[in-house]
Amino acid sequence: MDKILRINMGAEGEPSATITSNKEYEGLGGRGLTSAVISKEVTPLCHALGEENKLVIAPGLLSGSIGVMTGRLSIGCKSPLTGGIKESNAGGQAAQVLARLGYAAIIIEGKPKTDDLYKIVINKDGIKIVPDNSLKMLGNYKVIEKVKEEYGEKVACLSIGQAGEMKMASASIACTDMELRPTRHAGRGGVGAVMGSKGVKLIVLDDKGMSMRAPKDPEKFKDANKRFAEGLQKHPVTGQGLAAYGTNVLTNILNEAGGYPTRNFKTGQFEGASNISGELMAEIEAKRGGQPTHGCHRGCIIKCSGIYVDKDGNYISKQPEYETVWAHGGHCGIDDLDKIAMLDHLDDDIGIDTIETGVAIGVAMDAGIIKFGDADGAIRLVKEIGEGTPLGRILGSGAGTTGKVFGVERVPVVKNQALPAYDPRSVKGIGVTYATSPMGADHTAGYCIATNILKSGGYVDPLKTEGQVELSRNLQVATAAIDATGLCLFIAFAILDQPETFQAMLDMINAFYGLEMTADSVVKLGQTILSTERDFNKRAGFTSAQDRLPHFFKVESVAPHNEIFDIKDEDLDSVFNWETTATTN
Amino acid sequence: MDKILRINMGAEGEPSATITSNKEYEGLGGRGLTSAVISKEVTPLCHALGEENKLVIAPGLLSGSIGVMTGRLSIGCKSPLTGGIKESNAGGQAAQVLARLGYAAIIIEGKPKTDDLYKIVINKDGIKIVPDNSLKMLGNYKVIEKVKEEYGEKVACLSIGQAGEMKMASASIACTDMELRPTRHAGRGGVGAVMGSKGVKLIVLDDKGMSMRAPKDPEKFKDANKRFAEGLQKHPVTGQGLAAYGTNVLTNILNEAGGYPTRNFKTGQFEGASNISGELMAEIEAKRGGQPTHGCHRGCIIKCSGIYVDKDGNYISKQPEYETVWAHGGHCGIDDLDKIAMLDHLDDDIGIDTIETGVAIGVAMDAGIIKFGDADGAIRLVKEIGEGTPLGRILGSGAGTTGKVFGVERVPVVKNQALPAYDPRSVKGIGVTYATSPMGADHTAGYCIATNILKSGGYVDPLKTEGQVELSRNLQVATAAIDATGLCLFIAFAILDQPETFQAMLDMINAFYGLEMTADSVVKLGQTILSTERDFNKRAGFTSAQDRLPHFFKVESVAPHNEIFDIKDEDLDSVFNWETTATTN
Repeated sequence: MDKILRINMGAEGEPSATITSNKEYEGLGGRGLTSAVISKEVTPLCHALGEENKLVIAPGLLSGSIGVMTGRLSIGCKSPLTGGIKESNAGGQAAQVLARLGYAAIIIEGKPKTDDLYKIVINKDGIKIVPDNSLKMLGNYKVIEKVKEEYGEKVACLSIGQAGEMKMASASIACTDMELRPTRHAGRGGVGAVMGSKGVKLIVLDDKGMSMRAPKDPEKFKDANKRFAEGLQKHPVTGQGLAAYGTNVLTNILNEAGGYPTRNFKTGQFEGASNISGELMAEIEAKRGGQPTHGCHRGCIIKCSGIYVDKDGNYISKQPEYETVWAHGGHCGIDDLDKIAMLDHLDDDIGIDTIETGVAIGVAMDAGIIKFGDADGAIRLVKEIGEGTPLGRILGSGAGTTGKVFGVERVPVVKNQALPAYDPRSVKGIGVTYATSPMGADHTAGYCIATNILKSGGYVDPLKTEGQVELSRNLQVATAAIDATGLCLFIAFAILDQPETFQAMLDMINAFYGLEMTADSVVKLGQTILSTERDFNKRAGFTSAQDRLPHFFKVESVAPHNEIFDIKDEDLDSVFNWETTATTN
Repeated sequence: MDKILRINMGAEGEPSATITSNKEYEGLGGRGLTSAVISKEVTPLCHALGEENKLVIAPGLLSGSIGVMTGRLSIGCKSPLTGGIKESNAGGQAAQVLARLGYAAIIIEGKPKTDDLYKIVINKDGIKIVPDNSLKMLGNYKVIEKVKEEYGEKVACLSIGQAGEMKMASASIACTDMELRPTRHAGRGGVGAVMGSKGVKLIVLDDKGMSMRAPKDPEKFKDANKRFAEGLQKHPVTGQGLAAYGTNVLTNILNEAGGYPTRNFKTGQFEGASNISGELMAEIEAKRGGQPTHGCHRGCIIKCSGIYVDKDGNYISKQPEYETVWAHGGHCGIDDLDKIAMLDHLDDDIGIDTIETGVAIGVAMDAGIIKFGDADGAIRLVKEIGEGTPLGRILGSGAGTTGKVFGVERVPVVKNQALPAYDPRSVKGIGVTYATSPMGADHTAGYCIATNILKSGGYVDPLKTEGQVELSRNLQVATAAIDATGLCLFIAFAILDQPETFQAMLDMINAFYGLEMTADSVVKLGQTILSTERDFNKRAGFTSAQDRLPHFFKVESVAPHNEIFDIKDEDLDSVFNWETTATTN
């Protein structure tokens, strides 16, 4: 990972590739690297779909090693959805393969002068950038079928579906999993639209002939990795819970906690929750011959995913995540798992964020376009996104635009990005994260559900205002650091609860790079990343006024707790308090 | 004008009206009053379509008097288009009638609890707020037909068409002219959507039994008014030019100056300009039996408007304004006046801003939805807005949203409001106004065309950077003050060039109110209004990053002068320099 690959899609004549040694961003990885590049190299007020924007694809610091759980990929750009900086994080095989090819990042720049659509092939011999208009307006699944025919099954792919080509603000970038299915997505913020604006449909990564990345101290790394893996296996969430039921185990938990946003955030409990729970989903998968347990990349030992099949055992989709089941399910009043799995498949194929899409459909339901609970209507609407009909274009532009176009007042977005599957009035810590994260509303940016609901890393009462700001701050800082490592965020449960597992993680990084990082340096790293991102957003015109939930959360209480979001504005403004201190000193 | 009428559409049981004496906002009128109320009473981060927003309808300080040109009405709210404060200004009869009824403002608050649509009837006997669902989804022309049947022809009306009911961000509020045609619109910023969100379709104003507003010193006022009128008649623009050819006289002028934005701002000259010029339009109107000269309200002596008829002499629309002819014409590559007049009629009927609509269609043309030059296609698209099809909804949401939904990079908006009919690269003063006006891109906010092109108020070379900031500052300040008086902005030509006419205007205000205003107090008034508006916007999350033109104007030059917009950011930030001074002192 000592190289940076820059691809200029707007170069005179034809797109060009340049490989340089990574001096400028040395020591950075994942989100740390993507946010540094965007902040330094992209004009904050440029058009997100213009030639000045860049798409940065970076594996984490530990990706490509033998370390467990190191397969997360960061994709950064100025977001066409939020207008601010974006790091969208995905699993799948790409991070490992790209890291083994020796690249700290691919930076795609410029904009082609023609309408041609390109594929980029990267292997040990170099880079090919080839126009391939036969891929135009294909879904991700068909794109990958063509890849298999031409490149076999041992590559990893990044691709966009129709939505990315149409430059929709909810467009994702698909990353293939171990079976070369385009099921792991950098979903949030419209990164797929930026890839589409650069005329890139597909990136094929082939690490044949390359070896695992070697740590500076192999023995120490091996030992730390062993302790880290043991720690994960010992913890009830990462060792058993996620494998057994996947993330969708949360449906029953959040519903019981009254924090399950139902029918566009009108109530906090859904009467159909048990029909779409993780427990039922695992049962269906086992019974029909799917798989309740499945990892998305080599080296994953948590295996939170699965394979969802129809009644005849035919593949429909990977096991839909909790947030997907919620967005297409409870948020829209839909309680049919087969239909939700079909929506998940369509989202992955068209290449759109499941959260943004589901929330947009719920907003459209509030506008009366279709009725709450109309699963077939929802499927039809998602298909329209792929077809690019005017209605599909509206929905594909995200929940915020859908609300604007239909004149809807109740639009659950922050920085124009849709709120995920946790009501901020019943789980106030996550509300602080939604409001203040530089990414827009994003549960992964500081997953307070862990401590508010799952009692991991201590306990902060989800209904009280006390402690939420500190909780969100600590988790946002820790998450930014973890997002730089390439480690899957789910390790957080174990490192929050088990000091020796946290130490094992530090030892892995230190052994790999010959460093002496401490808990304090992790905090410093996370703070630096967040401040870099916030600085970009500030230059893009964001103020504390954008660090707010939509007004209705402050004035409209939600059953069953009948709570509003009552964290004070000045407390929200204290989340990034190290910045204030730095200025004052 | 010593009363304020507050109408609470969300009152328990049914909407209620309260009349209070105007102590709180005493001495304010027009834009001065609307912006003061919005800034003080509306939460800047509320949803523009929510119950917290207010719609303020205020005649100017001199409206309802015998003074000439005093018929302008200000309508204010938080804008659903820009998210900032909005004052949208219209001619027609309403300001005079409302002022004679004694109201400094109507403030419409709250939001009805049902889907009922209301009409509000205001006369000397009081206020009636009546549900009238027979008006649902009628265009403005049909609404006014019904008004005539019920209330006769001597009333003045404010109404919304289908777009306002659908809460589209480009929805206008129609004001009837002297012949009770709904042709004068508070067009910009989606004020019609706010009226629609409050369930108000129609306001009927009847001043039967009321008299002209009496000045404190009638003799002095009469004398000043006489001198003022003489000054207007003496000036070539206000005395002859506008009457003869209307505002559309500018088509040839701007085209010759290379500042006529053509086909979505790709070039600065339109080969079809002579087919849609004001000179030709006046000739057609005269030949067919229309009217090349027509005033929009009693007391208007400039008479810039006209009546456009078809080949058989049947009424199509009022004479389309220059900005309308441009938005539907050159901006879309259309050079057919009959089609443009039909588009103007449809805009007025559906109740949408002609500028925002034309620009949105041009952006859609750039996205390939229809071809540039396709006049029938444009008519079909505007009809779709009225029907509320998904495509119509997109276009009705304005140019910015249209660009987002179709993934278009070239979107000429500032603060999400479409740029009017002057290229900011070839006429740099107006670019400063577009960028910095708290209203979003708005030529009327500081009409630098006057000095850059028409050489009124001196001359500043339109292609040079020097002097543009000062010019825009002075005109924005003067305009804010004029917008408070109820005087038509077109008086500016005469008061800029003729000191004695400026003095006559001051004398009118002083005689009416018993004041001793000077040129300095006019400046102070304008500055206060602008700072009030900027303060609201700041609290709504705006920074200097929003005081910028779209990026492409800075990097892409425009023929024939091959100029970019090269006013420096720090110079744009110095427009409101009295604020800095105030803070420093």
